[in-house]
Amino acid sequence: MNKRAVINVVSALIVVIGLMILISGIVGWFMNDQHNVVYQMYISAAFSIGFGSVLFLLTKAKNKKFRLGIREGFGIVSLGWIAASAFGCIPFIIISDMFWYDAFFETMSGFTTTGASVLDDKLLLMNGKTLVYGIADLPKGLLFWRSLTHWLGGMGIVVLSLAVLPFLGIGGQQLYNAEVPGPTSDQLTPRIANSAKILWGVYMLLTVVEVFLLWIGNMTMFDAWCTAFGTLATGGFSTQQSSIGYYNSTYFDVIICLFMFLAGCNFILHYKALRGKPLFHWKDEEFRFYFGLVVLSSLLIAVLLMLNKITIYTSAGLEVEPGLFNYLRYSTFQVISILTTTGFVTANFNLWPAFAAILLVTLMFIGGCGGSTGGGMKNSRIILLLKYGKVQLERCLFPHLVSNVRLNKERIPTVTLHKVMSFFFFFITVYLIVALALCFLDSNMDFKTSLSASIAALGNIGPGLGKVGAICTYSWITPSAKILLSFSMLLGRLELYTVLVLFLPSFWKK
Amino acid sequence: MNKRAVINVVSALIVVIGLMILISGIVGWFMNDQHNVVYQMYISAAFSIGFGSVLFLLTKAKNKKFRLGIREGFGIVSLGWIAASAFGCIPFIIISDMFWYDAFFETMSGFTTTGASVLDDKLLLMNGKTLVYGIADLPKGLLFWRSLTHWLGGMGIVVLSLAVLPFLGIGGQQLYNAEVPGPTSDQLTPRIANSAKILWGVYMLLTVVEVFLLWIGNMTMFDAWCTAFGTLATGGFSTQQSSIGYYNSTYFDVIICLFMFLAGCNFILHYKALRGKPLFHWKDEEFRFYFGLVVLSSLLIAVLLMLNKITIYTSAGLEVEPGLFNYLRYSTFQVISILTTTGFVTANFNLWPAFAAILLVTLMFIGGCGGSTGGGMKNSRIILLLKYGKVQLERCLFPHLVSNVRLNKERIPTVTLHKVMSFFFFFITVYLIVALALCFLDSNMDFKTSLSASIAALGNIGPGLGKVGAICTYSWITPSAKILLSFSMLLGRLELYTVLVLFLPSFWKK
Repeated sequence: MNKRAVINVVSALIVVIGLMILISGIVGWFMNDQHNVVYQMYISAAFSIGFGSVLFLLTKAKNKKFRLGIREGFGIVSLGWIAASAFGCIPFIIISDMFWYDAFFETMSGFTTTGASVLDDKLLLMNGKTLVYGIADLPKGLLFWRSLTHWLGGMGIVVLSLAVLPFLGIGGQQLYNAEVPGPTSDQLTPRIANSAKILWGVYMLLTVVEVFLLWIGNMTMFDAWCTAFGTLATGGFSTQQSSIGYYNSTYFDVIICLFMFLAGCNFILHYKALRGKPLFHWKDEEFRFYFGLVVLSSLLIAVLLMLNKITIYTSAGLEVEPGLFNYLRYSTFQVISILTTTGFVTANFNLWPAFAAILLVTLMFIGGCGGSTGGGMKNSRIILLLKYGKVQLERCLFPHLVSNVRLNKERIPTVTLHKVMSFFFFFITVYLIVALALCFLDSNMDFKTSLSASIAALGNIGPGLGKVGAICTYSWITPSAKILLSFSMLLGRLELYTVLVLFLPSFWKK
Repeated sequence: MNKRAVINVVSALIVVIGLMILISGIVGWFMNDQHNVVYQMYISAAFSIGFGSVLFLLTKAKNKKFRLGIREGFGIVSLGWIAASAFGCIPFIIISDMFWYDAFFETMSGFTTTGASVLDDKLLLMNGKTLVYGIADLPKGLLFWRSLTHWLGGMGIVVLSLAVLPFLGIGGQQLYNAEVPGPTSDQLTPRIANSAKILWGVYMLLTVVEVFLLWIGNMTMFDAWCTAFGTLATGGFSTQQSSIGYYNSTYFDVIICLFMFLAGCNFILHYKALRGKPLFHWKDEEFRFYFGLVVLSSLLIAVLLMLNKITIYTSAGLEVEPGLFNYLRYSTFQVISILTTTGFVTANFNLWPAFAAILLVTLMFIGGCGGSTGGGMKNSRIILLLKYGKVQLERCLFPHLVSNVRLNKERIPTVTLHKVMSFFFFFITVYLIVALALCFLDSNMDFKTSLSASIAALGNIGPGLGKVGAICTYSWITPSAKILLSFSMLLGRLELYTVLVLFLPSFWKK
C-alpha cells in the first residue's frame, strides 16, 4: 500500500470536515449561540483545517499524481472514516466537555448514519457533572453539526470528495466501490466524478424538498434542516430527546415516512425517475421487494397490535387512542424507520409484544436497498440469497442443473454471488461476536439488549430493544463497549469487506 | 416420484417401529409395569406391525425390485420420519391419555434427538386431568420407548433399515445421503449396507460401554440404559424430571460428558480409532475445531461465572458450593451438552448472565460434527464457511485469485461449498421464520423464549432459555406452536434440504 498517498487523501478529507464544522459554527452564530460556543466551533474547525492542510502539503506527491490501487482504495476509505470521526468529535469534547469515547461514539454514529446517541441527562461529563437537559442542552451549532454528520455520511464522505476534489479522479473507482453500499456497484456514467455529482445532486434536491414540506407544516427551519438531514441519510438523530414523537403530528409522520422510504431506495432510481421515467421504480426488482416488505410488515404489526389490544405509547409518553388508523400510523412509521435503518421513533416499540420485536430486529438485518443511504445487509443481497438458495434446492433433484441467477433480468456473475454468500456469513458472525463481546465488556447487558444493540450498531439503525430501546440512549454503557459499538458501526457502514481486508496480513505486504 | 415404492419402503419402516414398541412393552413387563399398560404397549406394537405389513404387501413391487432414484430417496426419508413419529406416538396416546399433538411432539422430539419434552405435572390430558407426577408418573415401558426413540433416531432409522433390510440396497446411496448429517457424506465402504452396519456397530458398542460405566457407578440398570440412549443419540430425554442434575454425582457427570462428547464426533473416526489408529481423531480438522470450541467455551463461561460471583443452582434446585472445580464442572457439562445438541441439564443455566446465554445459543447453531448423531449446522460447515469467507476477503485484494478450500487436505468441490453457503442462509431464515411464527401462534412467547425455542427445536437441542429454559418444559405452549416446533425438529434433523425439496413444484412433476 502506498501509505503516503493514503495519508494525503485522508488529510484532504480532514480539511473538508473542518470546513463543515466551520459552516456549523456559522449556523450556530446565526441561531444566537453563546459567543464562546461559536468561538469554540471555529477553533475546532481551524484545528482540522490547519492539521489537514499541513499534512496534505507534507505528503504531496513528488511528481505528478498518485495512482491509487485496490489497497489504497480500501485504506483511504477505512482510515478516512476513522479520521473524519476523530476530527469530527472535537466540538463535542471542547464545547460539551464530553469524554473522548462518548464524543467519538456520537460522531461515528453520525457519520455512519446509525443515529445511536449517548446524549441524555444521565451522561457523565469530564467535569464530573452530567448533561443538564440532554439534547436540548446542546448549543444549536453543535446540534447542527451532529445532524450534518449524518448527511455527509449518508451519501458518503469519500464519494462527496470524489465529486468536489478533481485530483481523486484516478483510482476513484476503487474509492467508489469501497464506499457505496450494495452487492453491485452500478454507475450512472463512465466517469466516477460525474456519477458522484449526480448522486449528490439528487440527494440535495430531496433534502431541500423535505425541508420545505416540514417548514410549511410549521416545523422551525432549524428543526426542519436537522430532521431532513437525519431522514435522507437514514440517520435518526433528532433535535428532540423524544425524537419525532415529540411533534405529535400526523403530517410530519407522513412526510418523514415518505422521505425515509425514498432514502432507503436506490438513488439511481430517483435520478432516472427525475429524468422523465416516473415509473422506473416499479421496474426494479429490489424496489418491489422492498416495497412489499414495508407493506407486509406494517400490516402484520398493526393487525397484531390490534388483535392483542396493545395500547401504543408515543416516544413522548402519551397514550395513543386505539383505532385502525393509529395502529397503522405508528406501525408503518416504525417499520419504515427500522427497515431503512433510520431509527426515528414515534412510538415506544420497546413495549410491543415479542412478535413485533423479532420482526423489527429481522428488518434491521435486511436494511435498505443497494445504492441507498440505508444500512443493513440490503434487500438486493437478500433477493440474491433467496434466488441462489432456490437453485441449490433444485440442484438436489437435478445435480447437473446449470442455472443462472438474474436480477432485473441481468445475469449476476458467479463472483458477485459468492461475495454475497460470504457477506451474509460474515455479517451474522460479526453480529454474534459483537453481541457476545458487549456482554463481556458490560455486565449490565442483558440478552435482549446486547442482541439488539449489536445489530442496531452493525446495521446502522440506532435504537434497539431493552435498555437501548426506543426511548433509551447508549449513555449508560461502559467506555470499552462504546468503542466496540463505534467500530461495529463502521464495519456495517462500509459493508465489512472494506474494513476486514485491513486485517489480512497480505494487505500490508509489499 | 414413484409413490408406490416410497409407500412400500415407509411401510417396512412402520413395521420396524412396531417391533421396537414391542421390545419396549417387554421391558415394561420385565420392570413390573401394570398388566393393562403392558397390554396397551402390545396393542400399539401390533397396530403398527399389522398396518405396516398390510401396506407393505399391498404396495409390493410387481416385478423384481424397485429402483429408487433421487426423488424417492428424499420422499422415503422425509415421509419415513413423519410416519415413524405418527406410529411411534400411539403408546403415549393410549397409555397416558395425551393429546395427539403432545404425543407427536414428544415422539418427534425423540426420533430427531431433540429431547424437548411436554411431560410435566401441568400437562393437560385428554381426560381433563393433568399428569400427576410428570415424568416419574409414566410406566417404565413407555419411558423406555421414549428413550429408545432417541437411540433409533440418533444414527438414523433409515440407515438402520439399510443395515437390516437388504432389499433397500438399490438406491441406498440416496437414502444414506438424505439422512446422514454433514456437508459431505463419507462412506466407509463402497457398499452402503456395510457402512450402515459398521456405524450402527460402533454406536451399539459405545452405548453398551456407557451403560456398564453408569451401572458400576450405582445407577439402576433401567436408568443407565435410558441415559445411555439419550447420550449416544445426543438426545437429552432423561428418566428424571430434573435431568442429570437429579443424581448430583460428579462421576455420572464426567462419564456422561465424555460420552456426549464422543457422540458429537464423526463416528467414522471412532471406527478408525477402534481399528488400531488411536490418534486418528486428532488428525481430523473438524475434531480439532470441535475440541477447541468445547475447551474455549467451557473456560470462558467458568471464568465469567467466577468473576461475576454467580451462584450455580443445579437443575434439582440445590445451591452449588462456589469454587473453580465446580464452576468448571457445571460449565463444561452444559457446554458439551448444548454444543453436541444433547440437552441434558445439571445446572439451571437459565439463571446465568447474558454472556453465557448468548454463547450457549451460538453453540446451539454450531452443533456437533458431520457424521455424528448431533444436530445444528455441524462444525465442518462452519469451518468451510470460515475458509471460504477468507478466500472471498482475499479476492478483494487479488480479484483473480483461484483458491481451493481444503478440509483435511482434501479439496472440497465447489458444488459442496455452494450447498454449504445456501444451507447457512436457509438455516438462519427458517430459524427466524419459526421464531416469528411461534410468537404469532402463542401470545405467551417472549423475545428470549421464542428466539431460543426456535433454535432448540431446529438444532435438535431440547432446552432453550426463558420459559423453555433448563428446568422448564414445552407443556404450556399452544397446540399449533407445538406442531410447528415438531416440524422444525424434522427440518433440522434432516438438514433442511431433504424436507425442503418436497416443497419444490418440480419434485412432484413426472
